Amino acid sequence: MLPIAVDAMGGDNAPSAIIAGARRAVEERGIPVVLVGRADKMGDVGDLPVIEASEVIAMDADPGASVRNMKDSSLVRAAEAVRDGNASAMVSAGNTGATMASALLRTGRIKGVSRPAIATAIPGPSGTPTVLLDAGANAECKAEWLVQFGQMGAVFARERFGVDKPRVGLLSIGEEAGKGSPLVKEAWGLLDAVDWAANGAEFIGNVEGRDLMGEEADVVVTDGFTGNVALKTLEGCAKNIISALLEAFESTPEAEAASEQLLPALLPLYQRFNADTYGGAMLLGTKGPCIISHGSSGDEAMVNAISVAAEMVEANLVDKLADAVSTHL
Amino acid sequence: MLPIAVDAMGGDNAPSAIIAGARRAVEERGIPVVLVGRADKMGDVGDLPVIEASEVIAMDADPGASVRNMKDSSLVRAAEAVRDGNASAMVSAGNTGATMASALLRTGRIKGVSRPAIATAIPGPSGTPTVLLDAGANAECKAEWLVQFGQMGAVFARERFGVDKPRVGLLSIGEEAGKGSPLVKEAWGLLDAVDWAANGAEFIGNVEGRDLMGEEADVVVTDGFTGNVALKTLEGCAKNIISALLEAFESTPEAEAASEQLLPALLPLYQRFNADTYGGAMLLGTKGPCIISHGSSGDEAMVNAISVAAEMVEANLVDKLADAVSTHL
Repeated sequence: MLPIAVDAMGGDNAPSAIIAGARRAVEERGIPVVLVGRADKMGDVGDLPVIEASEVIAMDADPGASVRNMKDSSLVRAAEAVRDGNASAMVSAGNTGATMASALLRTGRIKGVSRPAIATAIPGPSGTPTVLLDAGANAECKAEWLVQFGQMGAVFARERFGVDKPRVGLLSIGEEAGKGSPLVKEAWGLLDAVDWAANGAEFIGNVEGRDLMGEEADVVVTDGFTGNVALKTLEGCAKNIISALLEAFESTPEAEAASEQLLPALLPLYQRFNADTYGGAMLLGTKGPCIISHGSSGDEAMVNAISVAAEMVEANLVDKLADAVSTHL
Repeated sequence: MLPIAVDAMGGDNAPSAIIAGARRAVEERGIPVVLVGRADKMGDVGDLPVIEASEVIAMDADPGASVRNMKDSSLVRAAEAVRDGNASAMVSAGNTGATMASALLRTGRIKGVSRPAIATAIPGPSGTPTVLLDAGANAECKAEWLVQFGQMGAVFARERFGVDKPRVGLLSIGEEAGKGSPLVKEAWGLLDAVDWAANGAEFIGNVEGRDLMGEEADVVVTDGFTGNVALKTLEGCAKNIISALLEAFESTPEAEAASEQLLPALLPLYQRFNADTYGGAMLLGTKGPCIISHGSSGDEAMVNAISVAAEMVEANLVDKLADAVSTHL
């Protein structure tokens, strides 16, 4: 397999935690990696190859302008490595919009895909997360795009999480077909008309916000505005409840002692609800596979992100996405 | 004070839990209450007066059609009691849409209000919740309505939660002014042009989903589709994490013993994150004050809902809402 191009400069903990994660992916999992960025800032990279890139797109920079103007940035060079056949996929914990724009502008869209979408895994009560898309690539969407999001999401749920026959739901504010915004009503009609059996999937109609962490659907499609609001709402909620819990655990010596005894029971929960477990979101619809990791990613998150990238390359995800959107409408 | 009209027939636990809550509101808090519904189904109502209504709008009935056709339903009769000066406000844990439609069609809109909105309290790390509106009254919104939601939300945050100078945020997918959907971009401009000082409030620009449970904003405005998705996402997330915790607490005898010792530290959290604490959402913008309680409300939630209704009547909320939307654009 061609190496995974890792943006060494992107993310709150770059470059040290990114490089530590990349080294672990090579050593522990045998995945080939190439680092992209400024070698003079990287410190010890061990045996890892480096693609030099002199510029760094800041976390809060304007995505479009950055990608246009910073042609020697680590993100643009990482995407070019994929485009030019020097890497099989790219991974970045940097500026989300710029990561997306680099992948899209340098590697191009998969034939037949109207718009790439960000697919995120939402943990639930069982071991299988729900795939939410679009989690923020397209603030405004046409109803037809949501159909493709469903088709691509079903492929992703199957290849990434082993869901045999993914159930695709449409995010709305009531379960009945007539409920929701004009976009949702139109999308419902289009989704309902798809031959989902040919996609090896199933359309289950509208789902609600509470189903994102539930068991109802394997894939939930929505526009990128709603999806991003929902995702950040979830993140904020989980973070808040966990902070409040930790505070309660430390509130008295008795509580502290009791909570230590609870640790073995709580650790699996932490694992399940921790975003790092899933290694980040995946951009679906670009020719070059692209993993968008959380800005706060540490080395563990990077190991997982690089592993997901490698898995999706080996699964020929891109070909399967192309097949899903082209043949079954 | 005129009594609070309580829909005895609405909600998953109606009528028994509703009536139990109404009786407690009278006995424990001295709030006058009138029950609305079928007396023959109510059981023991103590000394509470009853307004007879022979029909019940089902939880999943179409709101508009029900209110039009079921003129002798408990919801319609409750709204008419407010309209006719026999009650000061209405409370229902029944069909949300029908509750809203009854209040709107029977009591009318406050002069100057384009559309009423559902305001919900989202608990956060401090004692003061964030007011989210619209939480689902209007699936599609115009930008101007969002401005009024902000003005009404600020009044509500002040009167209900004692926030001196409410900070109003606009829900979006990035903090910069240019980020978001076309609706959000337009609303940003209109919100930024309001003389918020005259409203005794402040516009703080865009906020994100993670700020709903945070400390950034006192009021968050959005369209009813996004708001309802966000609210239900929060509810689902909290419910899921709490279920997972409870499961972990019971997973081994050791964990069970430890979690019992933690109870005193955890109970205040339960109180803070439990929706029942806030007694339900409030419809802002109708002439008749209207509290929409959660369908799962028990008697505790009803006591709180009736108390909020009484407080808001005593605070002359409706006059203050009228003032906020009419004078300061």
